[in-house]
Amino acid sequence: MLTELKQQVYDANMALPEHGLVTMTWGNASGIDRSRNIVAIKPSGLDYADMRPDDMVLVSLDGEQIEGSLRPSSDLQTHLVLYRTFAEIGGIVHTHSTWATGWAQAGKGIPAFGTTHADYFYGDIPCTREMKEAEIRGTYERETGNVIAETFELGNPMQMPAVLVHGHAPFTWGRTPKEAVYHAVVLEEVAKMASNTIGLNPQASGISQTLLDRHYLRKHGEHAYYGQEGK
Amino acid sequence: MLTELKQQVYDANMALPEHGLVTMTWGNASGIDRSRNIVAIKPSGLDYADMRPDDMVLVSLDGEQIEGSLRPSSDLQTHLVLYRTFAEIGGIVHTHSTWATGWAQAGKGIPAFGTTHADYFYGDIPCTREMKEAEIRGTYERETGNVIAETFELGNPMQMPAVLVHGHAPFTWGRTPKEAVYHAVVLEEVAKMASNTIGLNPQASGISQTLLDRHYLRKHGEHAYYGQEGK
Amino acid sequence: MLTELKQQVYDANMALPEHGLVTMTWGNASGIDRSRNIVAIKPSGLDYADMRPDDMVLVSLDGEQIEGSLRPSSDLQTHLVLYRTFAEIGGIVHTHSTWATGWAQAGKGIPAFGTTHADYFYGDIPCTREMKEAEIRGTYERETGNVIAETFELGNPMQMPAVLVHGHAPFTWGRTPKEAVYHAVVLEEVAKMASNTIGLNPQASGISQTLLDRHYLRKHGEHAYYGQEGK
Amino acid sequence: MLTELKQQVYDANMALPEHGLVTMTWGNASGIDRSRNIVAIKPSGLDYADMRPDDMVLVSLDGEQIEGSLRPSSDLQTHLVLYRTFAEIGGIVHTHSTWATGWAQAGKGIPAFGTTHADYFYGDIPCTREMKEAEIRGTYERETGNVIAETFELGNPMQMPAVLVHGHAPFTWGRTPKEAVYHAVVLEEVAKMASNTIGLNPQASGISQTLLDRHYLRKHGEHAYYGQEGK
Repeated sequence: MLTELKQQVYDANMALPEHGLVTMTWGNASGIDRSRNIVAIKPSGLDYADMRPDDMVLVSLDGEQIEGSLRPSSDLQTHLVLYRTFAEIGGIVHTHSTWATGWAQAGKGIPAFGTTHADYFYGDIPCTREMKEAEIRGTYERETGNVIAETFELGNPMQMPAVLVHGHAPFTWGRTPKEAVYHAVVLEEVAKMASNTIGLNPQASGISQTLLDRHYLRKHGEHAYYGQEGK
Repeated sequence: MLTELKQQVYDANMALPEHGLVTMTWGNASGIDRSRNIVAIKPSGLDYADMRPDDMVLVSLDGEQIEGSLRPSSDLQTHLVLYRTFAEIGGIVHTHSTWATGWAQAGKGIPAFGTTHADYFYGDIPCTREMKEAEIRGTYERETGNVIAETFELGNPMQMPAVLVHGHAPFTWGRTPKEAVYHAVVLEEVAKMASNTIGLNPQASGISQTLLDRHYLRKHGEHAYYGQEGK
Repeated sequence: MLTELKQQVYDANMALPEHGLVTMTWGNASGIDRSRNIVAIKPSGLDYADMRPDDMVLVSLDGEQIEGSLRPSSDLQTHLVLYRTFAEIGGIVHTHSTWATGWAQAGKGIPAFGTTHADYFYGDIPCTREMKEAEIRGTYERETGNVIAETFELGNPMQMPAVLVHGHAPFTWGRTPKEAVYHAVVLEEVAKMASNTIGLNPQASGISQTLLDRHYLRKHGEHAYYGQEGK
Repeated sequence: MLTELKQQVYDANMALPEHGLVTMTWGNASGIDRSRNIVAIKPSGLDYADMRPDDMVLVSLDGEQIEGSLRPSSDLQTHLVLYRTFAEIGGIVHTHSTWATGWAQAGKGIPAFGTTHADYFYGDIPCTREMKEAEIRGTYERETGNVIAETFELGNPMQMPAVLVHGHAPFTWGRTPKEAVYHAVVLEEVAKMASNTIGLNPQASGISQTLLDRHYLRKHGEHAYYGQEGK
């Protein structure tokens, strides 16, 4: 069932260690079939080397397990909130990648310091507020999704496909699991560059709205002119 | 004799360069057979490439060499104190991994800045006090073990499987040599993230006790729900 | 047509990921045949793994596409301005390499802190001024070239084969595409070293003009004595 | 002639890129046959990939070329001063390794912050004074050697097998070319750790003389007890 989705989600998960984004079994990627409202996600705590496409766990959009004998990632409920809230996204990635996590731990969003950032993220990458005691003690993973959703109340998740969860780590997303991986890679690179920029110039204030517009829109706007036609 | 233990200890030692935790011949891993009170440990100063499982040296819990013609790691006495003091541990790893050693040299414990940390270490990772002149001049390696033991007088080594020795480097441990390696890997990653966090926000204060509890206990508590059943 | 030039430009592009200078499809290299005023450049947004020498796009010095069905790099116009302005250069490389981009984002040129720098760059590596709104909104890539040209109004591009574009990233060049790659590699290394130097000594002021002269000229002057004869 | 020395020097040179200590053709290693006072050194500016043991250039202790058609490293005269001044050394390595060079550019010696350092370097690793105009304009490479010799006027090069040349980069040495490489590897690691330590604790003051003694002497003193007998 949903062989292709499971393959895509498997590929996305396997891409995480290849890109140096995960240590040990950390991190997880998922994807959704919007026509059936079924999500495929990595099983919890499995070695990447041991995983096969068929191990991906299928769950309904409200979290009922549909297929697979393995337990889904413990972050499943966060993914589900994001799929329910952000109607256009088709894939989600969660990592504890080194540099982006350093920013999340500092409780700071990543300013748009340059065009590398602007090519993919339309503004500062936000960091959520700290979660409240009741949220942490309650349905924690679901509340993690809710605090991300709250952070985007006025934002457009398709133009800002990443968030840092305060004291935790990043989530990224995209139209497909593959695109969510891509954004996780760029986020980590941008986080590393930004750490260096802060070290060199603590007052660095980021690029102008005009330059942000130019770079983001040459890749993503209606009049995009980066890449090949139809790609 | 104790072929399986020697293999486990050999595997743990070989994992150290694979994970980028050691330079040259630095670092050592050991394991204990609690039923016989025999410890297997890496020989001193041997190239990783030249080591075989049979080279692991067997010693009694009070340091008498039982098997093996090679001299045991010069850090043997530190390992033995830890095995004698922490009854539940089955494996120990000592490295000079870059980032964790940077913290030890700064004489600072690593604050619990995020959930990556909280997933494995239940609180700030402690740094020992400086060793006294007499301790250094005396049975130095044994005293290194003693100063670690002193640091844990009120602590639980199973919930805090790592320590930084002041001006020296980290030791980690676990129920098995393999788990001690795992904790050494996580420690190094957490140390790197924490250095970045400090650079971005010198006032960063760490996550709340509630969030620490949630993450540590979802992996390690009675009601753990991370990973697969029975793993 | 121009098979050798395309091969050189292809090789230069492929060298970028090998040297760890690019993430994903980022970065581009070009070369020029000065006798025909034809430029070969990487196509836009193509995976490095999928590229072949024949995919290099040929354009005239004023930007007309001469050969190739793929769209040229979106940074083409910047390259063309540089070829028109700097008559002696034969190859150009643009990357968003991590450390050099950190400096560009900080809006700071890289001081000549040491002889590694002086061996290739005769003075501080300049950072352009911020681009103006009208320049960004207008023919942006061309204006990027113009602001680089302005930065070199009094400078010698053959003695300073690199620039940081403010809030963006570096461009490097050389007599050949291969030499432009070489300078991109050195720039990244020098940028990383300089970040460390600033961290250790915020007041570091750079080497003396005498030492700068000595090192630059022993490699590049009339009386150069580095390397083998005729190389 | 001196086939074995050339092989040793070749091996030492090839080890530099393997350990990540050099970029491009940078760096050089040499060795000396003390019975004949002949030095073997890397040729200048050759690609590591193209080098063969026979390419090592043989020169007398006062710099006359004895064998080899290639030009010796441009740093030859520095090596020769060190061989003439430090009677016990048998091999020298010069690199521009990233972190150690950052310290040289900052004009700062590396404090003995920990036991990793103390295991190989008996005290702070010194940084030379800045070279004077006349020294730079004169026989520069020889004067580089002289300023190192001056730095060690009261020091013991066998207990401190490394130096940072101000605004330039490190030199290391040892009883053999292989040991000089070893010290270059340790120096780079120690420099990286120390940068992190400074970032975490700008007031870090280094370990006590007692701890320095203990670690240095357990590896190098008369009563050394690290490693295997006779190794």
